[in-house]
Amino acid sequence: MKACVFDGKAVRIDPDYPDPNPAAGEVAVHVRLAGVCRTDLEIVKGYMHFTGVLGHEFVGTALGGKHEDRRVVGEINCVCGRCDMCHAGLPTHCRNRTVPGIQGRDGAFAERLLLPEANLRAVPDGVSDEQAVFAEPLAAAIQIGRQVDFEPGEEVVVLGDGRLGQLVAQVLRAWNLRPRVIGKSPAKLAILERLGIAAIHCKEARPGHDTRIVVECTGMPDGLAMALEFVRPRGAIVLKSTVADTAGPNLAPAVVNEVTIIGSRCGPMDEAVAMLARGEIQVEPLITATFPLDESPQAFEAAARPDAIKVLLRP
Amino acid sequence: MKACVFDGKAVRIDPDYPDPNPAAGEVAVHVRLAGVCRTDLEIVKGYMHFTGVLGHEFVGTALGGKHEDRRVVGEINCVCGRCDMCHAGLPTHCRNRTVPGIQGRDGAFAERLLLPEANLRAVPDGVSDEQAVFAEPLAAAIQIGRQVDFEPGEEVVVLGDGRLGQLVAQVLRAWNLRPRVIGKSPAKLAILERLGIAAIHCKEARPGHDTRIVVECTGMPDGLAMALEFVRPRGAIVLKSTVADTAGPNLAPAVVNEVTIIGSRCGPMDEAVAMLARGEIQVEPLITATFPLDESPQAFEAAARPDAIKVLLRP
Repeated sequence: MKACVFDGKAVRIDPDYPDPNPAAGEVAVHVRLAGVCRTDLEIVKGYMHFTGVLGHEFVGTALGGKHEDRRVVGEINCVCGRCDMCHAGLPTHCRNRTVPGIQGRDGAFAERLLLPEANLRAVPDGVSDEQAVFAEPLAAAIQIGRQVDFEPGEEVVVLGDGRLGQLVAQVLRAWNLRPRVIGKSPAKLAILERLGIAAIHCKEARPGHDTRIVVECTGMPDGLAMALEFVRPRGAIVLKSTVADTAGPNLAPAVVNEVTIIGSRCGPMDEAVAMLARGEIQVEPLITATFPLDESPQAFEAAARPDAIKVLLRP
Repeated sequence: MKACVFDGKAVRIDPDYPDPNPAAGEVAVHVRLAGVCRTDLEIVKGYMHFTGVLGHEFVGTALGGKHEDRRVVGEINCVCGRCDMCHAGLPTHCRNRTVPGIQGRDGAFAERLLLPEANLRAVPDGVSDEQAVFAEPLAAAIQIGRQVDFEPGEEVVVLGDGRLGQLVAQVLRAWNLRPRVIGKSPAKLAILERLGIAAIHCKEARPGHDTRIVVECTGMPDGLAMALEFVRPRGAIVLKSTVADTAGPNLAPAVVNEVTIIGSRCGPMDEAVAMLARGEIQVEPLITATFPLDESPQAFEAAARPDAIKVLLRP
């Protein structure tokens, strides 16, 4: 089959990549549409030391199992079910997990990928492929609500106007909170404004140590330092950015102000699909371009441009 | 009066420092015994840009007000009662606070200091001066229990065998938890062992990402990085160390493992006094030396030595 492969050095198309062969409990999925994520861009810079087929955001058609011939999305953490984390009810932190396109398992930038059947979630008919491909990053945005207790209607500062910041802002608004996005791309801030979400250029923002909850999704090394300027004493920062090989800020202000910093990664796919089905998330403004799988290298270039939001791949 | 003063450059004794003059609501306290804290050592290196009389740990005799002629300790955050933090029930984070010996207010390394009467707490007769002088750092140790929910009897890793680590370990044991202290001073680890507390040299510790709650009180720039090696996914690190002008570790592992990092500072003085009164904290093994106030510079030198725990000053 055709696949977009990273060999540790470059992204290339392999027209004859071995067809995936399901193990017990696994199902092959025909990929209909896949999304390029910031993590993919980091991986091709060496993050996670991954090699193989890239990609972990997708919607596809199950080629077997109970969802056969139906559209599915996939929970990306493939778990052992036997380690202490799985037993503690924290399967996304399974000690032996594999993750398509990230860790020990081929990903979704290919004609087909394999996932455990238990990881697949059916996509309702009313949800388009273009919506469904956002399920995985949307789940990551929804995860925030499982980690902090928001007060009804409160203002929440979101640092970053990129892929994840856009979704986080829409999720917070769907929860009747008041997101206030601080970003640096006029084009991306304009998208938020058109959706009725408060959006401020970082040069105009005036951090005042007065926000109870700040969501950091800048993807930049200085994002946490900025969050510490916005968060109020005893407030919380939800930290979404993983930046490889960069020192963090001095955390003395977090100690003095008793700030809580909460690392946040993957979230609930079921809830993401449900939000998409209820039409609570506008994905159209977030799609920058769609490339055929053959043009994956160009898609990576497009996704890395400053004004890009979500770049899609169609096998 | 006699006072130990920091002028921004050196610690010296001023034999004719102006006698404190209580403002409305304030009470003068005759200092009986004071303690040198790591924060004091940082301040004389420039932290907080404080100048004036040093010291914030003390037990004394109130020279007026409702506690007149009785022994008292003091809550160190002197607050305005009018700002948003005070109104939010977070007075220790008062925007306009002063703190003796740390921020905008003379401290306790003197014959007398001033505090708002509301900050004073009576010391029961059964509590000695040597015990009472530990009330402030003990409160900081107790604060941990207000910020994380421990599971009954669970093992808690404490990083650091110094002043605060010793108190944290004793507090955790008083709460029927199982502290396991990782330190680097054989003498300090031996004190813990004599108290029946598990103590391991850092060279022998084998961090395994498997501890639900880690308390970081190393006072060292690399303490948080070490804590991230011990804490399990979805676990929590209580961060006590404030280290000036040093970058923090890369926090990508905290994001991937969804670790919560909780800054922690001052704690409840009432509870500290109550724990001392119940005899739950052994302070004798922690007292390295007691100096007369005249020898404050020597006391600072002694407190900075690697094997020092608590150095006291007697005015």
